[in-house]
Amino acid sequence: MDPITFTPIGIIHSPFTSTVGMPVQSVGATGTPGTIELDSGLEDGLMDLQTFSHLILVTHLHLVNGFGLQVVPFLDDRRHGIFATRSPRRPNPIGLSIVRLIGITGSTLQIEDVDVVDGTPLLDIKPFVPAIDNRETLEIGWFADRLDRLPTARADNRFGERGTSE
Amino acid sequence: MDPITFTPIGIIHSPFTSTVGMPVQSVGATGTPGTIELDSGLEDGLMDLQTFSHLILVTHLHLVNGFGLQVVPFLDDRRHGIFATRSPRRPNPIGLSIVRLIGITGSTLQIEDVDVVDGTPLLDIKPFVPAIDNRETLEIGWFADRLDRLPTARADNRFGERGTSE
Repeated sequence: MDPITFTPIGIIHSPFTSTVGMPVQSVGATGTPGTIELDSGLEDGLMDLQTFSHLILVTHLHLVNGFGLQVVPFLDDRRHGIFATRSPRRPNPIGLSIVRLIGITGSTLQIEDVDVVDGTPLLDIKPFVPAIDNRETLEIGWFADRLDRLPTARADNRFGERGTSE
Repeated sequence: MDPITFTPIGIIHSPFTSTVGMPVQSVGATGTPGTIELDSGLEDGLMDLQTFSHLILVTHLHLVNGFGLQVVPFLDDRRHGIFATRSPRRPNPIGLSIVRLIGITGSTLQIEDVDVVDGTPLLDIKPFVPAIDNRETLEIGWFADRLDRLPTARADNRFGERGTSE
């Protein structure tokens, strides 16, 4: 299949200078502040965004090097197919973070609940809309026994040094 | 910023041979069947995925040609910044679809709630986990007055012929 090329629309800044020790999801990073430095040429695309409380960030997990088809994720002790996990070591290292929007000044966005390493390239911003994005799911596989670990789980170096949000 | 290149992990097949008339979100496509033909070399990455009921698909909206910084989205009659909409005409045409997983046979996945055009390149599959992915948001901007249109809204040709799921 033909490769697809994207150009980042901005950079995410966070307090995390290393992925080791980072929260593994936005829900484990409540209140963690960060900023988005959007490409200033795209500032007109932010019109009306300040009226949303939550954003979906599509990121490039730029520190990931290679991928694994089966991995032991941070939240479990057993091996699973990569597509049955939220591990960053994916064939295409694309991350999703849901963050709280605090404010916008020019092309800079103040955000909270940041779970990406400082310098993470941003590919897209979408407004979070519960009627579109929420689901009540009956089956969540191995996560069912591991959700208690989510708030406190932290990344380690099992995949090497790379972004953890996925 | 340096461009980033991804290679699709598979192709999504759907009943929609044209984007015109398509539902504009998965929630408007309830029950619509489709299949994912995963790259057969990635089949080992599906281990345990059959124990999840919903998947997040990260897609390339491959029919989009160019982008707009401000657009009138399908769900509204007014102009908004592209990042305050789910319009496909984004700087990086990356779509998110949440679909129901029906079954897996080899490297073929049967899915429902499909809101992408036939032949859409797939970049990633993630298991949907409510504790990670759901949010109760207070502010949803212009969507607040337009959610009633969501179940029945259909794409037209205002952005030309392209994928509509975003």
